[in-house]
Amino acid sequence: MLKNFDFNAVDTTFADRKRSELGAELAALQRKLLNSDSSLLIIVDGWESSGKGYMLKEFTRELDPRYFEVSLYDEPTDEEKAHPFLWRFSRDLPAKGRIALFDRSFYFELMSELKLSDKKLNHQLTDVSFLERMLTADNTLVIKFFLHQKEKTMVKRIENLKKDPYRELLITAEDELQIKKYSKYLNHFDEVLERTNFEGSPWHIISTEDLKNASREALGITIRALKEHLEKPSGEEADVPRPASAIKPLAKIDLSKTITEQEYEAQLEKLQKEAGEIVYELWIKKIPCILVFEGTDAAGKGGAISRLTRMMDPRSFDVATTAAPTEQERQYNYLWRFYQTFPSRGKLTIYDRSWYGRVLVERVEGFTPEYRWAAAYDEINEMEHNLVHDGNLIIKFLLVIDKEEQEKRFKEREADPEKIYKLTEDDWRNHEKFDVYEEAMNEMLVRTNTIDAPWIIVEGKQKEFARIKVLKEFIGRAKAFIKKNS
Amino acid sequence: MLKNFDFNAVDTTFADRKRSELGAELAALQRKLLNSDSSLLIIVDGWESSGKGYMLKEFTRELDPRYFEVSLYDEPTDEEKAHPFLWRFSRDLPAKGRIALFDRSFYFELMSELKLSDKKLNHQLTDVSFLERMLTADNTLVIKFFLHQKEKTMVKRIENLKKDPYRELLITAEDELQIKKYSKYLNHFDEVLERTNFEGSPWHIISTEDLKNASREALGITIRALKEHLEKPSGEEADVPRPASAIKPLAKIDLSKTITEQEYEAQLEKLQKEAGEIVYELWIKKIPCILVFEGTDAAGKGGAISRLTRMMDPRSFDVATTAAPTEQERQYNYLWRFYQTFPSRGKLTIYDRSWYGRVLVERVEGFTPEYRWAAAYDEINEMEHNLVHDGNLIIKFLLVIDKEEQEKRFKEREADPEKIYKLTEDDWRNHEKFDVYEEAMNEMLVRTNTIDAPWIIVEGKQKEFARIKVLKEFIGRAKAFIKKNS
Repeated sequence: MLKNFDFNAVDTTFADRKRSELGAELAALQRKLLNSDSSLLIIVDGWESSGKGYMLKEFTRELDPRYFEVSLYDEPTDEEKAHPFLWRFSRDLPAKGRIALFDRSFYFELMSELKLSDKKLNHQLTDVSFLERMLTADNTLVIKFFLHQKEKTMVKRIENLKKDPYRELLITAEDELQIKKYSKYLNHFDEVLERTNFEGSPWHIISTEDLKNASREALGITIRALKEHLEKPSGEEADVPRPASAIKPLAKIDLSKTITEQEYEAQLEKLQKEAGEIVYELWIKKIPCILVFEGTDAAGKGGAISRLTRMMDPRSFDVATTAAPTEQERQYNYLWRFYQTFPSRGKLTIYDRSWYGRVLVERVEGFTPEYRWAAAYDEINEMEHNLVHDGNLIIKFLLVIDKEEQEKRFKEREADPEKIYKLTEDDWRNHEKFDVYEEAMNEMLVRTNTIDAPWIIVEGKQKEFARIKVLKEFIGRAKAFIKKNS
Repeated sequence: MLKNFDFNAVDTTFADRKRSELGAELAALQRKLLNSDSSLLIIVDGWESSGKGYMLKEFTRELDPRYFEVSLYDEPTDEEKAHPFLWRFSRDLPAKGRIALFDRSFYFELMSELKLSDKKLNHQLTDVSFLERMLTADNTLVIKFFLHQKEKTMVKRIENLKKDPYRELLITAEDELQIKKYSKYLNHFDEVLERTNFEGSPWHIISTEDLKNASREALGITIRALKEHLEKPSGEEADVPRPASAIKPLAKIDLSKTITEQEYEAQLEKLQKEAGEIVYELWIKKIPCILVFEGTDAAGKGGAISRLTRMMDPRSFDVATTAAPTEQERQYNYLWRFYQTFPSRGKLTIYDRSWYGRVLVERVEGFTPEYRWAAAYDEINEMEHNLVHDGNLIIKFLLVIDKEEQEKRFKEREADPEKIYKLTEDDWRNHEKFDVYEEAMNEMLVRTNTIDAPWIIVEGKQKEFARIKVLKEFIGRAKAFIKKNS
């Protein structure tokens, strides 16, 4: 894309427009955006000292500063390196109605490291592609600019910067490096651009030889795309093929499994100690670990989690309880809020309910239209695949009881003053829908039981049996993972 | 507190209780806490290798892991150092109903640096005292433990750790240092404990010579304090003296101030450029800057902010709009949400409405009981003082119009299809309360106009006049601040 770029064939579509006029047009669209279900992400990347700061100013000058946000990315900090790659970006993505402008963005490392063959960078390419597709699916318009300049222009610009006392410090070692190896970087950028020139979020190469022209062009492109985006009838149902599946994993399980009290007592403490030791080992080996607990109400998730963590160092794990998304969380993609809680290297996060709410409660209660929750199976698989690729151990437990058992447990809770607080009106309402939930769980099991992140079905009718199984599965799988990765 | 500590005079109040029994009692209180308006913060600090990890395990073993969180503090990262001191802790404080356990906490640097005379540490003492008072005022029970051990016990413990392959890496340079200078550290810890032994949040010194005894004691103290706390009738009105003030700053201002269109045109762009340059200077000098904009609806806050930021590098500032707190934000102290957005060194955050909502809308609409909002004047002054102490430049603008002008502007909005979206039912309702808001603003001006963070009253009837005044005041005050701090 860069190699055959013609600096003389400048786009003149917007050449006769005033920049202030274009800015005002963008500001008018910003007001429309504010009341819509969409958001806008503008990425400005390119050569060092190619005018990124200038362009960002041009973009924002006429905008209402209350409703946009500019984020600047540099080398990741230690804290950022310890988290999944998308973690630091997920915090800055635009909420519904808002505009986010990224200076460099998630392309930072991809652009600045000259070799893409590296495993880490390869992973970043996968994650970037995932992120941009998710954003696009979620009504976020993603516009990516790469600012291009001739070698001799770059040399001159850096010379000029050196003379300016306020801006001299903007020159970095990266600038010097790019000048020294201009053609090597040209080839490298070209490859990155080619490989990330996605259909829903293509790159726009902008020559910044003439900065005013460049900003007219970039503003013009943005206005055109945003206008088109806002005129598109929203909520249009995409056609998500969902091949019918006759497999019902839950129909085949044996809920009558039990262990004796003696067996339970004999094993419990030993397994808990072992689980505690393994968590130390994960810590030392810097392996991040994600455990998911799903299941109907009263399936025993809380009890199983307490038994599992009892001997673990409380500094090494977090339990994240997933409730209905808050108003603020609903302004973002349903997966982003989890990115905030994914463990850093060496830590363990246990999810008491999780992103699977998308294909369970949101599906059953009709909170999310079918074409969106039906797409979630693939989205979730891809997210989990990327997390595993990033070094995470993921184990997912589904605790299963039947409808009769649920009724029995609800009634016990009603009768126990210490436990009645656990029972709400909603619980009885959901109880009526037990079969519909079961159907949703069956489909979830079939579609998201991947090699990367398998489901463990836990027969939950006898609590003791379930607790021991969770402990054993965690220990066995964590041990195997540690061995494989040592 | 440490110097005269008698290792032989161990508290035996809880000596005959089983630890599992005490743990279960704490777990029962946790369930009570969950449905209350309170929260619990347990701080575990002390000598290196004195059993902090052990104690945390003892605390949490019987608790429901979904409703507590353990945070571990070490040397602040670069990102943390770039933010106000309380920033990293504010994220981890307990929400209503929850328990937070801090391993080390905000005492980390105070304890590990041997000299308290340092300006930075002195500031931390002020901030810690502020934080603990705020928490206590907000129904958070703060329990602080310092784990104490004899020199020879410490030596032995570190020797034992060295033999354990999983725990060897827990030994740090800090351990070696504390052994080498045991008595120096003893004196130092003693001083820190003395100076932070606040009435509402005293220290408990626990000998960990016998770890089981120590955990019985710590659990017992926590149970006793939490029980007492939960039995205390909540919402009891504290008596906050509010001396009546006859001063009405808003009565004295001259709203007829105007400038001509020529004057406006001649000055605007020049001042905007200057403001843009100053923001670069603040960046280079690493000065964080906070601008607050308050004023009634339609006073022109948004317009003044856009004019101010027009020539600023959009990477250097953020505009934070303050709406009614979300459900999640209401689970914390009203000031904490702002700690998340305070600027890092060199950045500028502009608040379109702010923490002053506490003494404006929350007061007028009765969202907060009087004894709490009346206390907010002092709380806010102290917070701002601490931020200035921490290096921040704070300027607060109050944009003022009269009731007639507000009515005129609302009517204009109604008539303009481009602006009608700005007008809501609430606006007309608030218009009726204009005088009550004015009274609240008068008291706010009198009580929070400090030398550290002064209020600038901006006569807002003519928008052009107001915008130029804001620009000039920002430039003048920022310049003076830079000069004073260079």
